[in-house]
Amino acid sequence: MSEVRVGLLGLGTIGTGVARILIEQQALISRRLGRKVVLVAAADRDLARDRGLDLSAVRLSDDANDIVRADDIDLVVELIGGYEPARTFVATALEHGKHVVTANKALIAKHGEELFPLAAEKGLAVGFEAAVGGGIPCLKALREGCAANAIESVYGILNGTCNFILTKMENEGADYAEVLKEAQALGYAEADPTFDVEGIDTAHKLSILAAMAFGAKIRFDEVFTEGISRITPSDIASARELGYRIKLLGIAKPHGDQVEMRVHPTLVPHSSQMANVSDSYNAVMVSGDFVEHTLYFGRGAGERPTASAVVADIMDIARVHPHGVEHLPAPMGFVESERREMATMPVADISCEYYVRLMVRDEPGVIAAVTSILADQRISLEAIIQKERHATNSVPVVMLTHETREGNLQAAIARITALESVEDNALILRKEQFAA
Amino acid sequence: MSEVRVGLLGLGTIGTGVARILIEQQALISRRLGRKVVLVAAADRDLARDRGLDLSAVRLSDDANDIVRADDIDLVVELIGGYEPARTFVATALEHGKHVVTANKALIAKHGEELFPLAAEKGLAVGFEAAVGGGIPCLKALREGCAANAIESVYGILNGTCNFILTKMENEGADYAEVLKEAQALGYAEADPTFDVEGIDTAHKLSILAAMAFGAKIRFDEVFTEGISRITPSDIASARELGYRIKLLGIAKPHGDQVEMRVHPTLVPHSSQMANVSDSYNAVMVSGDFVEHTLYFGRGAGERPTASAVVADIMDIARVHPHGVEHLPAPMGFVESERREMATMPVADISCEYYVRLMVRDEPGVIAAVTSILADQRISLEAIIQKERHATNSVPVVMLTHETREGNLQAAIARITALESVEDNALILRKEQFAA
Repeated sequence: MSEVRVGLLGLGTIGTGVARILIEQQALISRRLGRKVVLVAAADRDLARDRGLDLSAVRLSDDANDIVRADDIDLVVELIGGYEPARTFVATALEHGKHVVTANKALIAKHGEELFPLAAEKGLAVGFEAAVGGGIPCLKALREGCAANAIESVYGILNGTCNFILTKMENEGADYAEVLKEAQALGYAEADPTFDVEGIDTAHKLSILAAMAFGAKIRFDEVFTEGISRITPSDIASARELGYRIKLLGIAKPHGDQVEMRVHPTLVPHSSQMANVSDSYNAVMVSGDFVEHTLYFGRGAGERPTASAVVADIMDIARVHPHGVEHLPAPMGFVESERREMATMPVADISCEYYVRLMVRDEPGVIAAVTSILADQRISLEAIIQKERHATNSVPVVMLTHETREGNLQAAIARITALESVEDNALILRKEQFAA
Repeated sequence: MSEVRVGLLGLGTIGTGVARILIEQQALISRRLGRKVVLVAAADRDLARDRGLDLSAVRLSDDANDIVRADDIDLVVELIGGYEPARTFVATALEHGKHVVTANKALIAKHGEELFPLAAEKGLAVGFEAAVGGGIPCLKALREGCAANAIESVYGILNGTCNFILTKMENEGADYAEVLKEAQALGYAEADPTFDVEGIDTAHKLSILAAMAFGAKIRFDEVFTEGISRITPSDIASARELGYRIKLLGIAKPHGDQVEMRVHPTLVPHSSQMANVSDSYNAVMVSGDFVEHTLYFGRGAGERPTASAVVADIMDIARVHPHGVEHLPAPMGFVESERREMATMPVADISCEYYVRLMVRDEPGVIAAVTSILADQRISLEAIIQKERHATNSVPVVMLTHETREGNLQAAIARITALESVEDNALILRKEQFAA
């Protein structure tokens, strides 16, 4: 039985999971593949820590170069994370004729366009299923399962930390800061949570999904990105009253030669599949001109689910190694020469329905002034809610608009927040409808 | 650019959809594949009907033999449906060196074990993604996306007709017979709905999923199968009151050398993902020892979604034709020689929680007699509901049991329905808990 020899960079959480599968499920993997996948070597700076795994048959090193340049390794799994030195190690592995599998969304989002041509030139495969949606085989579903379709939209709940926080805020009526602390204590959020809560992690993943969906080059830096840190329990309650939940969504849609890409807290109808994705679960909805709406749901992070996706990639590559890599689907779903530079649609040009929360002084004429500015910008309202009443303090006014151009809304909000009686801290949330 | 030449058997609903994709999306398909897929020929008994498609470049015939034996065809798509003559045509196509793609679950469930070895021997591929879950790439997800896992369970809402009927019964409080008529008028149910409503279609699909999940041979004839025709609006209301919805589920779990396979109306908790799969949508939940719980949702039928899955299979095969078919995943997820005969667990041996609805005379001592028989069989109750009261007529009593062996429950029910004051039309529904 022919063998595929794997070297592992990084024995942290996910690396340990990958090692565990390759060791514990070796017989199962062979039954599925008809060949053996062998974990030959692993590198990590900390080799002393007990990982609850018998690694005695694995060559261990504290230098990644021992893996990426080794003669007896066919496939390198990069689980270091971040941009550097991951980029250098992956490039070196490719230059040394090794396939690469990674869970590193930052790396693919930022440096994919440098790595894909290198791999193609060398006749090597690059797998990154685990980079988006953790254990969910959503990239495979999009790239292969929906390949007969012109993709019409991709929506994703792509960050478990944010979804955990929003779910808890809704269930317990708790403040953002309080729930974040709890998430940190549980290990669901990092000490510095910026990448997660400000939407950057979601933007990494969305930029990969969008490029794969539409045959475009990845443009991570151009994703419009807003996080969840300004959402209050009162926003969540207002949204619920109107029939919505608030989720941090990544959204991608094609518009001719342009691609719309945005990450922001979004009102989703209570009855939609997306609204029912709770806690740290992730989901990706892919809609195509033939398949209609499909949704992929599961664990978006964690040692075991993420390792499951990494090993699925290893197995796909093992099937074609060393002969037949050209028979694998192209990593980004389109052959390299057919992938296009597509411009990112300016956010001012997108069209949406909006939730706007203003803090206003509760005095006669304020609402009239606000609605007259909206009318000037041809923005019509679906609902307006003003609950609390105070003679002295500012009170929240929540408005839902009908569909309008973002540019018009932003212009209106600038004029509205310039009013004497309106505070300048307006919160704008976007709303999406779903057919499923 | 190399070409893959496709011949189509059947230009009905799905066949027309497949032809439409191959003609209208040819450029997109080439961008993804790096090669061309060409619809060369199609056969149907009725060639006169207008399909709203320009088929002038396609060689048409009313004889399937013109396709399965043609020299210029690489891949045959079988969309005739049913056991025969589909089986004969598929076998002939394989014997003549053609890959096969089919949407025919009956064919795969019944004759797959004859067709897979034939294809393997000839070095040909067999694709059948469209046979389970329509447009949802759920077989790919299970076979490839979750390949690193020992699969722990598969649950499916696999029949859109049943899900449509149950959803409508719940939303409108309507009778089964009434909703079935409406479904027939809308084209969601056949004139003879037996295959759908009695669970046979779901059993076809479940037998394929189970074999693929556990590396077993397909044993369709051994799937325990109950349909939805005995469900009443009152059962749906009782279930809702207890926190459940009723769904027709296909369920497969491994138990050592045995496989549990059953299709029946099932109580699923209101908050679970499965409960929120409405109307004619389908969903498959795959749980594995590493990936935990994953769910795949979408359209389980219809021209366009099903055609999407058929063409995805064609594209997978096109990538490896004519060299490299051995690099494709094995059709059933395990190499042919590693697939095992696994016995089907007798239904008496399964363990479940149960919903039991009895019609009893409302007189003193009946409940005592019933519960004493249950106690004899070591069955404990979670809840018992008796709402309506009539001095003369029978009234429904609904019981929820804790987990128990089916054999014990059946023995108890036999004794209970033998009681003078209990009618012999007890309805037994099984209940499943979901972690997601």
